[in-house]
This record gives sequence, C-alpha cells and structure tokens, in this order.
Amino acid sequence: MTKIPTLYYFNSRGRGEGTRLLLTLAGVKFNDVRYNSALTPEIRSKTTYGTLPFYEDDDIQLAQSLAIESYLAGKFGLAGESPIERAKILSVSQAAIDFVLPIFHSDTDEKKNRFKNDTLPRLLNSYERLLIDNRNTTNEGKYIVGNKLSWADVSVFYVVDFLLFKGFGELVNQYPALNFAKSSFESIPVINDYLQQRAQNNN
Amino acid sequence: MTKIPTLYYFNSRGRGEGTRLLLTLAGVKFNDVRYNSALTPEIRSKTTYGTLPFYEDDDIQLAQSLAIESYLAGKFGLAGESPIERAKILSVSQAAIDFVLPIFHSDTDEKKNRFKNDTLPRLLNSYERLLIDNRNTTNEGKYIVGNKLSWADVSVFYVVDFLLFKGFGELVNQYPALNFAKSSFESIPVINDYLQQRAQNNN
Repeated sequence: MTKIPTLYYFNSRGRGEGTRLLLTLAGVKFNDVRYNSALTPEIRSKTTYGTLPFYEDDDIQLAQSLAIESYLAGKFGLAGESPIERAKILSVSQAAIDFVLPIFHSDTDEKKNRFKNDTLPRLLNSYERLLIDNRNTTNEGKYIVGNKLSWADVSVFYVVDFLLFKGFGELVNQYPALNFAKSSFESIPVINDYLQQRAQNNN
Repeated sequence: MTKIPTLYYFNSRGRGEGTRLLLTLAGVKFNDVRYNSALTPEIRSKTTYGTLPFYEDDDIQLAQSLAIESYLAGKFGLAGESPIERAKILSVSQAAIDFVLPIFHSDTDEKKNRFKNDTLPRLLNSYERLLIDNRNTTNEGKYIVGNKLSWADVSVFYVVDFLLFKGFGELVNQYPALNFAKSSFESIPVINDYLQQRAQNNN
C-alpha cells in the first residue's frame, strides 16, 4: 500500500511552506504534521540532522528544505528542462532564504533596520529585475525562469506572501512585476483553495 | 574562444570554497577573484542578488552557493545517479551551511556556547551516522552517499576542514568516520596539491 507523504514542520510557514505549496500544486494529498513547541530530543532523533522540515514518503526520508523542494519539484516536472534552467531555478529558490532568514535572526534594532532599509529592497529589486528580464509574450511575466511554471515561481510567491504576512506590505507593493507574479500564482485553482483554507488559522 | 570560468568571492573559504573544490576536483582552471573588503555598490550591481559567491562561464552567470555547486556537480558527474541520490546529496550539502552559518552569526557568548555545546555536536553526529550507515565493502566509508565520490563528499570535507580552521579540532576529532572521509578526500592528488598551495596564504 502506498503511504501518504508526510511533512514534519512547525505550525508556521517558514521553511516548510515551499514543500506544502509544491505538494498542493501537484494535487498530492499529504499529512501536514505541525509542532507547536520547540523540538524535543524525541522528535530530533527521528530526523536526519535533528532539524525540521523533514519529509517522508514510500521512497525517501529527507531533511533540508531545498533538498525536499528540489526532490518534489523534479518529481512534478517543476525543476527546469535543462542544466541552465535547473541552476537558475535553484538559485532563485536558495535566494528566497536570504529574504526570510534575517526576519528570524534580526535580534537588535540595528539588524532590523539594516534588513528593512538595505537587504530587503536590494533583494526585492533583484527578483523584480529577473521577472522583467524574463518577460516575453509567451510567459507574460508570470514566470521568473523560462516559459512555464516552476519551483522558482513557488519560491517567488512564498517570499512575497511571507513578507506581507510579516508586515512589509508597504515596501513589497513597490514592485509591480513581483506582485503580478504573485497574483498569477495564487490564481491557480488548487493554490487559491489552499490559501483560503490556510487563512482560517493564518499560519 | 572559450572563457576561463570565474568565481567571485571574498578572500576566504566561506561560501566560495565548495565551488573552488569542485572546479579543482574536475581539473578545471578558473579565475579565483577574491575581494578583501566589504562589497561596493559596483560589485553588487554585477551580481544577480548583490551577493557573493557569483560564478560565470561561457554558458551561465550564476549566484547562490548551492546553485553554483549543484550546476558544477551536475556537469562533472558528481551530483548523483538517481533522483533519490541527488536529493540526499543536496541534503548533505545544504546541511553544511548549518555547520558554518552560526560561526558568523553568533555575536553573543550565549549563541557561541549554544553552537559549540549543542548545535555542532548534533550536526557532527548526524554526518558521522550517515557515513557509518552508508559504509560497505565497496565505498569503504569514503563516501557519504552511494558508492562513488560526489558533491556531498566535497561538502563533508569542506565542513570538517572549516571547523578545524576555526579552532573546533578538539570536538571534530571525536568523530572517526568523519575524519576518515576527510582524509580520503584530501588524499586525492589534485585536492592535495590545492591544499598545499592554499596553506601558503591560509585563507
């Protein structure tokens, strides 16, 4: 019997949301196990590095967010068609971590200000430019790499969605290409359903 | 004419060393451009996200350490033979960042102690266990994923080498499988040559 895939993560978006979005996009039913507290030694011992996210299905047990997302993206045909596309997609998805990590690591006002006034505008500008440079009549500005939906677009949506959730709307709204890509992604019916459901607990 | 590949990074190991090791392993001559100071707006504007490492060759301009390493690993036959191997290799290489990032981010004694007494032993133990679980008569404990050298082994070497460089030798020496994998890797002739050369400036 085939086991339903399971994602183990905290009860938040963080490093687990990319995996949730990929599974949702592919129409795969999965167990969304969410921990509300810090990791216990018991949970740690079940995972590869004592960290979450951790993913398992019939074929694999896998730790590390990008490894999980890359594995699923490959399985669902969202990881790129050529070595160059695959590299660019992974680059966009790894860059997404740079947008999000400082939100958790900025424990002084100086770090918070540097993130808001320097790091974040620079990174938003980079995604904006990649979207504009990739825009043509086929992809209409919906995709950040190539001419079809990919894992990189999941990462772009994830970043914008997360920044809005964390109160950076005023800044994010200044990037029209980024906002258009986000709207396109969230208008995909399975994603739209997922987001409406998620809104109920807001995590 | 084919351009020699160029890696742009700081004058240190950090997030650039994995790429240097992969190019060295493949016997590819490359320009190792090293910046001694903080990034200027001019350098930032040349890269995708205003960050280093940044890599370019005739085919691609690419940012983000794992994307660059994954691209080169794929090109050199070091990225795994199956989707499962590829996923496990990326997982090991992404985990390497967890070993190294806190060294730069631990700006209080509390954070430094947590890294040394909790995070680092847990991570070292994870790599040790992966090596032991993967050990068989074919790979003799030299490789962390599968039965041939891969990008994951570059990452294992990178971690141990970096931790020794940063003064964590007493702790690292407690993991025999990890030290054996490191010795095996550094005995590869091109790597051995590279390390002897690197020792001269110690960066």
